[in-house]
Amino acid sequence: MTSADGKQLEIVAGGGLLHRRVFLSSSVGAAGIAMLRALPADASQQDAPAWMKVPGEGLRPYGERSKYESAVQRIVAPFPGTTGAGSSRSPIESFEGIITPSALHFERHHSGVPDIPPREHRLLIHGLVDRPLTFDLASLSRYPLVSRIYFIECSGNSAGLYAADPPQGGAGALHGLLSCSDWTGVPLSTLLDEVGVRPTGKWLLAEGADAAAMSRSIPIEKALDDALIAIYQNGERLRPENGYPMRLLLPGWEGNTNVKWLRRLKVTAGPVMTKDETSKYTDLMPNGKSRQFTFPMGVKSVITSPCGGQRMQGPGLYQISGVAWTGAGRIRRVEVSADGGKTWAPSALSDPILPKALTRFRMAWKWDGSPAVLMSRAVDETGAVQVSRPAFIAERGLAHRYHYNAIASWSVSAGGEVRNVYA
Amino acid sequence: MTSADGKQLEIVAGGGLLHRRVFLSSSVGAAGIAMLRALPADASQQDAPAWMKVPGEGLRPYGERSKYESAVQRIVAPFPGTTGAGSSRSPIESFEGIITPSALHFERHHSGVPDIPPREHRLLIHGLVDRPLTFDLASLSRYPLVSRIYFIECSGNSAGLYAADPPQGGAGALHGLLSCSDWTGVPLSTLLDEVGVRPTGKWLLAEGADAAAMSRSIPIEKALDDALIAIYQNGERLRPENGYPMRLLLPGWEGNTNVKWLRRLKVTAGPVMTKDETSKYTDLMPNGKSRQFTFPMGVKSVITSPCGGQRMQGPGLYQISGVAWTGAGRIRRVEVSADGGKTWAPSALSDPILPKALTRFRMAWKWDGSPAVLMSRAVDETGAVQVSRPAFIAERGLAHRYHYNAIASWSVSAGGEVRNVYA
Repeated sequence: MTSADGKQLEIVAGGGLLHRRVFLSSSVGAAGIAMLRALPADASQQDAPAWMKVPGEGLRPYGERSKYESAVQRIVAPFPGTTGAGSSRSPIESFEGIITPSALHFERHHSGVPDIPPREHRLLIHGLVDRPLTFDLASLSRYPLVSRIYFIECSGNSAGLYAADPPQGGAGALHGLLSCSDWTGVPLSTLLDEVGVRPTGKWLLAEGADAAAMSRSIPIEKALDDALIAIYQNGERLRPENGYPMRLLLPGWEGNTNVKWLRRLKVTAGPVMTKDETSKYTDLMPNGKSRQFTFPMGVKSVITSPCGGQRMQGPGLYQISGVAWTGAGRIRRVEVSADGGKTWAPSALSDPILPKALTRFRMAWKWDGSPAVLMSRAVDETGAVQVSRPAFIAERGLAHRYHYNAIASWSVSAGGEVRNVYA
Repeated sequence: MTSADGKQLEIVAGGGLLHRRVFLSSSVGAAGIAMLRALPADASQQDAPAWMKVPGEGLRPYGERSKYESAVQRIVAPFPGTTGAGSSRSPIESFEGIITPSALHFERHHSGVPDIPPREHRLLIHGLVDRPLTFDLASLSRYPLVSRIYFIECSGNSAGLYAADPPQGGAGALHGLLSCSDWTGVPLSTLLDEVGVRPTGKWLLAEGADAAAMSRSIPIEKALDDALIAIYQNGERLRPENGYPMRLLLPGWEGNTNVKWLRRLKVTAGPVMTKDETSKYTDLMPNGKSRQFTFPMGVKSVITSPCGGQRMQGPGLYQISGVAWTGAGRIRRVEVSADGGKTWAPSALSDPILPKALTRFRMAWKWDGSPAVLMSRAVDETGAVQVSRPAFIAERGLAHRYHYNAIASWSVSAGGEVRNVYA
């Protein structure tokens, strides 16, 4: 393939994947790619459009997105017959970069979003401690804070793909229980130091102030490692559906353990075996036994553009864009295939590549109009790698409900229709 | 100073500044600090509060912040007698981390915010080029995208501090023409390659589609370096007040050159000398001459907590928190003083430390209740350092209106009142 000025664009894998240098080699990496997606100019385009002929809208104390973007919404799925249980998924196919707009962060509630006056909220730390203490928002704000960009993924994300037949939907509908924010909070280790954990204290019970009293048992090692009591999200105070005024943040661990509206941490000798870790959030294996306390989220990736439900605009050059993440630390590499996994090529990872955060990957693709199957395969810094769906199902079985992280596949038909497939 | 379990907390500079290891040494860095900001627990706190006794609110397609946070607003200042000129400042004292919530990104408009139907918007690139072309949003989205976290600062930020007497206000009112976002866009170099810049093309005229036709001349070197045509902000499409559907992004350069609602780039042999770079955005020096095309923003920092207008809650341990940035690249170091600049200590910088992005710095401070003057002094990777206000004014004079980046100072009275001072 030759660009307008004669430079060669190197095809590096089947189906027309191009070398990642178009993203990487420098800020001018894509020069010479000659995509010519543009239209010829005509002189009338120098005339001012209608909206330049009237003064615009004034300043606003609090902005809103464009009215033309209102179709970008969370995909809402309340659970029938419950008092506020359900989830809403982030429309990740509409996003770029790594930050999730707070208004579109995924939700998973067990009894709705409580209305908590922040000045009345208290966090109690008690149990096997020397000095039981309570913290309000003002006192927490006096402690040394740390800020980190972390993803949160529901352990039930992508669970539709355990079904025998591939469900249809976009990247958000199938994989959108996933978001990433700039979180700021107090290291939980600091607060545990204040209360003085006794030698017998090995676990914590974390309880939310919602009507479901969402409760999980957390090993003390994680609490002393990188756990935060988060009070800010993307610069501002937490959003109500993300635990306002404070939540537990356990970087890289399944979403439900990041208990929202956190009101109580009880230091215990062992796990408490709450309803939320016995009747659910356990993983039934093919041998009939269940795994319990499977906290870290595995290495995973998904192509968000193109994705299911979209239609290609004819043969030509496209950008494949997606996100990768792992509960184990940093993403090391994301490979992409356009021929259903027969050949793979490394994608371009966009800086910053942060531990336990989404990493954006991109690949240039010259689609020739013939049927294709797009896949992405992430590798993290521990060497963990995504496996094919058949290999994944062979190990986990079909009765599993959580922690789905097999390679995801989108098929592209000759007509340009994009669908979710098992490949 | 000794913590509850006998560990020494090292005081490293006058006025009670503590060693940054409380933030840095590990996630448990602050253990042993014994701030004891908490209240003793009592058994009644195990009882469920009122909001746990009713189901909460349901899922929402698009979230909103808590009603209890509605007082956090941009500080709006329309210019009287104009058709939509003015600015609104970000309330940076209410933020943590490095991302500015898009609804609170600062604004600076010259004739209001145009209402642009995205499908009708075109970007024309013409002038000294081989192939004049127009790009719509759909065609731009097919080009290789890059994502970067960058600050934007208005060149008039902090200009109130040129006044003879120190103006009073919080960090946002005085220094809030400053925001930071996760931007995604097409490298301008790619588009210039498509049109084919002729050897005589050395500058670009960038024109916005607002009623003021905001126009700036940009050297081609910057356009070919790290300039973007940005189409996403913090994951979602640009906000209207930030140039929806597309803006020029010139990382590290004064805000007005990041032309919003970008509709035209004309390649020229020299600068065009538009109204926006002659009647304003030039810098009058003490010798009566003006500097022109002073694009990069200098190294700078501001303490956002505590700040003017706030009141300390009595002697004890506090966290000093602030942001630093430079148009030259990365922040290398931020030093803090609590004694008006007599002694300084290095603050803790929070990862990630990204080029041309805000960097969050923090310092623990044991305030003994006596009068204090807090200052921050940033150093960037080129070695550039902030200077005192007297040194700054001696060089720039008082007729300057832009590019104020002297060391900022907050005084704390014995009563705990915090005010802006020149020190």
